[in-house]
Amino acid sequence: MVVFQSHKRTLHDQSETQGADSNPAYDFVRRHIGPNERQTKEMLQTLGLQTMDELIDKTVPSTIRYRGTMNIPEALSEHRALKEAEEIALKNEVWRSYIGLGYNDCIIPTVIQRNLFENPGWYTQYTPYQAELSQGRLESLLNYQTAISDITGLPFANASLLDEGTAAGEAMAMCFRHNKRPRMFISDQLHPHVIEVIRTRASGFRVQIEILPIDKMDFSTKDVAGVIFQYPDTNGNICDPSGLIARAKENGTVVICGSDLLALCLLKPPGEMNVDICYGNSQRLGVPLGFGGPHAAFFACAEQFKRDMPGRVVGLTIDSHGAKAYRLALQTREQHIRQEKATSNICTAQALLANMVAMYCLYHGRQGLRNIATKIHTLTCDLAESLKSGGNSIKNEIFFDTLKIKPKMSLDEIKQRAKEKRINLRYYDNGSIGISLDETMNESDVADIKYVFNVENKSSNENTTVSRDFGQLTRQSRFLNAEVFNKYRSETKLMRYMKHLENKDISLVHSMIPLGSCTMKLNAAAELTPVSWAHFNRIHPFAPSTQWKGYVRLLNDLNQFLCEITGYDKISFQPNSGAQGEYAGLRVIRAYHEHNGQPQRKICLIPTSAHGTNFASAIMAGMKIEKVPVDKTGAVDMKHLAQLAAKHKDTLACGIVTYPSTNGVFEETIKEFCDIIHKNGGQIYLDGANMNAQVGLCRPGDYGSDVSHLNLHKTFCIPHGGGGPGMGPIGVKKHLAPFLPNHPLLDANADHNSKDSFGPVSSAPFGSASILPISWMYIRMMGASGLRRATETAILNANYIAKRLESSYKVLFRGHNGFAAHEFIIDVSHFKERTGIDAVDIAKRLQDYGFHAPTVSWPVAGSLMIEPTESEDKNELDRYCDALIEIRKEITQIENGEYDKKNNPLKNAPHSQHIFLHEKWVLPYSLQKAVFPIHFVSPNYKFWPSCGRVNDVYGDKNLKCRVD
Amino acid sequence: MVVFQSHKRTLHDQSETQGADSNPAYDFVRRHIGPNERQTKEMLQTLGLQTMDELIDKTVPSTIRYRGTMNIPEALSEHRALKEAEEIALKNEVWRSYIGLGYNDCIIPTVIQRNLFENPGWYTQYTPYQAELSQGRLESLLNYQTAISDITGLPFANASLLDEGTAAGEAMAMCFRHNKRPRMFISDQLHPHVIEVIRTRASGFRVQIEILPIDKMDFSTKDVAGVIFQYPDTNGNICDPSGLIARAKENGTVVICGSDLLALCLLKPPGEMNVDICYGNSQRLGVPLGFGGPHAAFFACAEQFKRDMPGRVVGLTIDSHGAKAYRLALQTREQHIRQEKATSNICTAQALLANMVAMYCLYHGRQGLRNIATKIHTLTCDLAESLKSGGNSIKNEIFFDTLKIKPKMSLDEIKQRAKEKRINLRYYDNGSIGISLDETMNESDVADIKYVFNVENKSSNENTTVSRDFGQLTRQSRFLNAEVFNKYRSETKLMRYMKHLENKDISLVHSMIPLGSCTMKLNAAAELTPVSWAHFNRIHPFAPSTQWKGYVRLLNDLNQFLCEITGYDKISFQPNSGAQGEYAGLRVIRAYHEHNGQPQRKICLIPTSAHGTNFASAIMAGMKIEKVPVDKTGAVDMKHLAQLAAKHKDTLACGIVTYPSTNGVFEETIKEFCDIIHKNGGQIYLDGANMNAQVGLCRPGDYGSDVSHLNLHKTFCIPHGGGGPGMGPIGVKKHLAPFLPNHPLLDANADHNSKDSFGPVSSAPFGSASILPISWMYIRMMGASGLRRATETAILNANYIAKRLESSYKVLFRGHNGFAAHEFIIDVSHFKERTGIDAVDIAKRLQDYGFHAPTVSWPVAGSLMIEPTESEDKNELDRYCDALIEIRKEITQIENGEYDKKNNPLKNAPHSQHIFLHEKWVLPYSLQKAVFPIHFVSPNYKFWPSCGRVNDVYGDKNLKCRVD
Repeated sequence: MVVFQSHKRTLHDQSETQGADSNPAYDFVRRHIGPNERQTKEMLQTLGLQTMDELIDKTVPSTIRYRGTMNIPEALSEHRALKEAEEIALKNEVWRSYIGLGYNDCIIPTVIQRNLFENPGWYTQYTPYQAELSQGRLESLLNYQTAISDITGLPFANASLLDEGTAAGEAMAMCFRHNKRPRMFISDQLHPHVIEVIRTRASGFRVQIEILPIDKMDFSTKDVAGVIFQYPDTNGNICDPSGLIARAKENGTVVICGSDLLALCLLKPPGEMNVDICYGNSQRLGVPLGFGGPHAAFFACAEQFKRDMPGRVVGLTIDSHGAKAYRLALQTREQHIRQEKATSNICTAQALLANMVAMYCLYHGRQGLRNIATKIHTLTCDLAESLKSGGNSIKNEIFFDTLKIKPKMSLDEIKQRAKEKRINLRYYDNGSIGISLDETMNESDVADIKYVFNVENKSSNENTTVSRDFGQLTRQSRFLNAEVFNKYRSETKLMRYMKHLENKDISLVHSMIPLGSCTMKLNAAAELTPVSWAHFNRIHPFAPSTQWKGYVRLLNDLNQFLCEITGYDKISFQPNSGAQGEYAGLRVIRAYHEHNGQPQRKICLIPTSAHGTNFASAIMAGMKIEKVPVDKTGAVDMKHLAQLAAKHKDTLACGIVTYPSTNGVFEETIKEFCDIIHKNGGQIYLDGANMNAQVGLCRPGDYGSDVSHLNLHKTFCIPHGGGGPGMGPIGVKKHLAPFLPNHPLLDANADHNSKDSFGPVSSAPFGSASILPISWMYIRMMGASGLRRATETAILNANYIAKRLESSYKVLFRGHNGFAAHEFIIDVSHFKERTGIDAVDIAKRLQDYGFHAPTVSWPVAGSLMIEPTESEDKNELDRYCDALIEIRKEITQIENGEYDKKNNPLKNAPHSQHIFLHEKWVLPYSLQKAVFPIHFVSPNYKFWPSCGRVNDVYGDKNLKCRVD
Repeated sequence: MVVFQSHKRTLHDQSETQGADSNPAYDFVRRHIGPNERQTKEMLQTLGLQTMDELIDKTVPSTIRYRGTMNIPEALSEHRALKEAEEIALKNEVWRSYIGLGYNDCIIPTVIQRNLFENPGWYTQYTPYQAELSQGRLESLLNYQTAISDITGLPFANASLLDEGTAAGEAMAMCFRHNKRPRMFISDQLHPHVIEVIRTRASGFRVQIEILPIDKMDFSTKDVAGVIFQYPDTNGNICDPSGLIARAKENGTVVICGSDLLALCLLKPPGEMNVDICYGNSQRLGVPLGFGGPHAAFFACAEQFKRDMPGRVVGLTIDSHGAKAYRLALQTREQHIRQEKATSNICTAQALLANMVAMYCLYHGRQGLRNIATKIHTLTCDLAESLKSGGNSIKNEIFFDTLKIKPKMSLDEIKQRAKEKRINLRYYDNGSIGISLDETMNESDVADIKYVFNVENKSSNENTTVSRDFGQLTRQSRFLNAEVFNKYRSETKLMRYMKHLENKDISLVHSMIPLGSCTMKLNAAAELTPVSWAHFNRIHPFAPSTQWKGYVRLLNDLNQFLCEITGYDKISFQPNSGAQGEYAGLRVIRAYHEHNGQPQRKICLIPTSAHGTNFASAIMAGMKIEKVPVDKTGAVDMKHLAQLAAKHKDTLACGIVTYPSTNGVFEETIKEFCDIIHKNGGQIYLDGANMNAQVGLCRPGDYGSDVSHLNLHKTFCIPHGGGGPGMGPIGVKKHLAPFLPNHPLLDANADHNSKDSFGPVSSAPFGSASILPISWMYIRMMGASGLRRATETAILNANYIAKRLESSYKVLFRGHNGFAAHEFIIDVSHFKERTGIDAVDIAKRLQDYGFHAPTVSWPVAGSLMIEPTESEDKNELDRYCDALIEIRKEITQIENGEYDKKNNPLKNAPHSQHIFLHEKWVLPYSLQKAVFPIHFVSPNYKFWPSCGRVNDVYGDKNLKCRVD
């Protein structure tokens, strides 16, 4: 890997005579960071400070300050960075990949690509927790769930999971939750990477999995929790699973089926065969291959499992006007996850990709999907016929799109001819060859495959020896019957529908979204641009490594950058989300202890203020949790920690700590925390959620941490996509590097494939690789000083808001010099008693002011946590402050009795246009007060929440998670 | 050129077993055309018809029906078409082009590229005639005008013109309008193509132009209308024009200056030197080279000329609530242009490109533009220095970014070395070389140029012999001082501003825009995609033809396709707009007559119902107009025509006719019309504005027309861009082909460069070439049968609406079987007397229903002309009909006295959110009536006009066309 020379440069250089890239007109740092020099100065003055350095000195403990200059190459303008990204992209080779294994190339309708995938109105949205501002994507996700439910034939589907492997893992966990039995049967015909991810998961839980052929499975012992089989299986074979299902069900075993949505358009669906859970990858329905991700894994289940479903589920309910509304019905939010009772730590979805799938299904409808599937199947039959005639033997008699072939010609010769045609096939260890056809193919592609096998290109009409029929397994039932799947078939209609939904939702294109712990910063267009390039997004994750040299460069660069930023020594890019990163990091720690002959080290110390996922991840990693209390200032009780650590010194695995703390404070004791754990034989897992407060100022790897995940979708500009995708790579110190995740389908001696690894955590070797260019672009355009400046500004912005709000609200937890980190908490719990107003009312009322709420009631009940990020300028911060101050006045009016306790602008918030449907004006305050509550909300600048307050109770009681 | 084999195929084929491209899932025709089979059947039934054929038989006269199958290749899916387009694009070579001549590469900020240039919310908008639904782009265009005004130092600027050459031509015409003098002085140091376009224009008008060096100009005869000089001139030379200006002004000559906006950021602007008019190309401020276009030409003038300004001008006014509002202040609308009194036929702008320029100026601000200009200037100085040291001589002592060099080395050697580096330079006939530097360059690009000249790469610090200073001509004045140019410097801010403006405006992403004669059909994302590719949009228009083989293929394909569609024999792609196409076509006719020794043939017969531009174009082409009356049915009075033609048989140049007629009728007499003209020695110019009613059904070239323009932005899917760009190529029969436009900078023996040509009409040889891929994609994805089906559906849709409306409104002018063409007119003039309601009130009221108005009061006063196009499905048509029927009921309520004549929902329309600003509800009807007037307009589906009715009178009285 190249080590870059570091260059220092002055920020905001006004010189007019330098090189094009040092021309301030092209300084991306100025574009990314909201406040300009003047505003920065004003804000510092408000805080009684002279310089940014003063602020940082008073905020970040000097004991942990990083004083060096990160060895990150000099910032490039977006023009030059795009050029360099293009050079990297062109090192990748886009071959036709017929490897299959759950990843198939497909055709993304351009109208979806342009108006959804490449549209910040869709990709900069946050997770739809504030339902009234999120009706657009909630509606779309409900369409997605309905499509999955319809196609799989199961009544309930969630809003997607991370990938096929983890979806299988989640299904396994559901079995245990359901029947508490100790054993698990896994068909040996699952995709190999799925088996390995299951194996990883099982070993964390200490579950006994048995991988065996379907016909060898004996359920009669009645101690088998679940069985997972694949239909069609990894080789493309389709056999009737009804016998297996019957045997399993008779004995109380939960039946789980991995499947392929396009195949199910022609095949009898699992839901009609008594299967309990069905999962798989929905990528081939309109999402790019992307070198493995991000994709939306689908997950559907039978009625009895619906309340155990992992991840997010969108449901219908009503709003305060009684009108239909959408909301998250079942959500395992990162902060609210069930902590140590969890059997899963999943708390996200792949919303953007699920929405693409939903739109693809709307656009094609049932007949369209069947046409696509039929076409693929017909081509496959034609290919099989020719291969057979040419003397090759087809190992799977019944197939949809995938053939397993024992070739006549030598493997070397075939590989040579395939290379000639730039075609990738699946090569089994035993000399067999797998071919999966896809939507992009036509007769000439098939002819090329025939050339590879040196067989005659026969016309398909002459087929005789290949069965084209699925017999009993032919799908009879109709699907996608709801009106929505039959309405948007012209491009005009679909475009309008997508725009209509987009414009219902608040996103970063409207106003700031200052969610504590979520870091909703700018996702710059230049950062997103490379994600659309074929050289990044049409690479199969299991293509030979000679074809993805560009990705190697990208991964190496990012490894170097992120190590510089964190002080770690190596990064694994496999984890798909922050929670998965936590899980991976904790498994690394366990593997390390085991390697050192200390498998008994399982105790994990976690402060009570930690993210809920910390607890869940630790449990999943097979650890035992001891909670460390926090004191009144929100700080970890160090005395208690020391006692606990000492008590468990022989069994201590690790301490988990978030830094700056979840309360938004740079605790002075962090080094001590690490020392105590280390002294007692434990490792430190430092949760990287708040990395945006640290970049350039302090490095976890320097002050004592051993491993962290990095939320690239927070600190490093991957957009939130309306609730996913994210990325949670982990960084580790050198001693942990040998234990990082590996992958069964990477070359055994690949750099990222240590044999001491605990196994893979994701289906794809490098997680959601195709969005890594976003973070790469960000770092390349910011440079070391730009990154540091961003952190400083994020801290300044947070403290500025805190200062402006402190006379109206009670600001909790600041550091010992009185400064918060990059976020802070205001306590609003005391309003409740006198006025009946709680945090949710303030959150909803903010919508009338055109704003998304901060994080509500976490980590402290009855609070709001605000994180503005560096991308918002002073004007926007002031608007937000003005709104909150005005709302405080409204609360005072309730206190004063000017407004009724139950019928007031806060309790009635948000005010949607439904208020105009009454014959008369029915509210005890004016229309202007309701909808234009402050000077900057006016006929010219009004974002309308698209429904009144969503009724959660009604939705919970009447759980409905699909369209009819 | 390849002649494609034609293939017939069945539309909406439901077969599941064909090739991928014949898979109905990928049938683009179904995506482009709104109504599906079922809806089509229902609509035919409403019309009392069984089949589409029946409708067409009853609509299109059998005498002109085209019964063949167009020789257009079989339709491709969008996936395959994009692949083919990519292959074509890759035939173009993207070299670095330092040719200059008014075209310079630049850096388009990605945030603008993604959120404006590639966003249908911006590019599918119509011209902002309905101001209340267009406040977003009007605001942006006002920013553009302000930037132009500021940078040129002149108080008034328009919203852009087509290109630099035509802008110069317009300036010349303004001189004549102003002082009626016969002579015009043109500096010989203008860009050569600009001189040639001026020459063309002048010869149409029979104006005497004299091209001569500035110091040879003698104004003392006081018969010189105007003088045009360029500053910096085409060679890059900057000389002080004050002497010239003084001499001209003393003698009453209007002073016109061609210029470069980036240079003016550093140079004393023309407005501060007593110049009257300044024009040029604004392309380098953030618009791609695009092989010559589309670009926005800028045009600014002094106070006294403001009301003579050609094109569109946006101005400020107030709305019905007294709030600030934007509107088109001066508009020469195609239908309202001053007919035979015109001195210009320009009736459009390049709005999308002007908006890109505006956003670029906002993003960079004054200091940013100065930084960019300074950087370029510094690099140029450095280059000049090195070239001089190396023994080359620089012909222009004072320069900004362009050098004219007498090289030391042989030209051949230089060309060879330039080829090595893939660099294009300007090669003068005399062996000199021109180099223009641009924004994309850095030191390494300059080093490459030095390599080409084989000179040392000296550091810029050592410069001594080159003057870096503009002395007296240094700009002292500040510009872009308005707040708007200092507010949107971070990407977040600019993105939000663009989205904010976008969402104020109705476009095709919201609802149908059924403008008669404007054909607002789907602009598919796949059609637009290639326009963003560097291989199409980074080609300099004067790059050597070896580098644009892809464009040659594209032009040849389109030539073939459009000839097949029209029945013509050759197409010229040079005209940039429909009106310019008319002008070019009429010049072709004149050149033909002159070539035949009949220069006296100048009489042009035009029906009174024609587009206003027809008259203006004929005048500009030096013709004399005789108007042909139309009868009560709107049809041309054939008897009168015959008389007129006979009367002028020795001087008849041509007849101009629109078909189907501007009244939306397939007149049965069209053949006869053509025959009469031909018999009397004239040619037929058939206005192609209504081509969308003809494609596949009848061909102008077959039934008697000799020449037509084709509005690619109507029939062939180029979007309207909020008021430009458009394309108006012309098709001609074989005998006229030698006279088509040529271009001075094309190879003399190029295919498109006949020596019998009358000259060029545009600055670029192929007009706005970079948007031609849009039409190519459309035709490639539709195929012959798809194109025909589109036409049939357009006719069906129009007739369906007419049928549904006929019981509520009086439908004018249908063909003799009772069917309209693709558009029709409803007469609403009779409401006026009884209710006070006129067409405008209905138009404004439609906004409350979420719709854009049809064309108002053209071609018949007090009417609405409706053209739905084929892209709208029955549901959308029904919504539109329902709205109009409901409005008719509201009119009845006024008739009945239920509503007051002056205070009613129509007169008060549109109802913006300003109605909520009153303390009490002040209207005599309910809020629901005002804003939710029909079931489909609801809190969930409401588009809000962003202001009340715009006050035109106030705006006219208080003309204000810039931001302060």
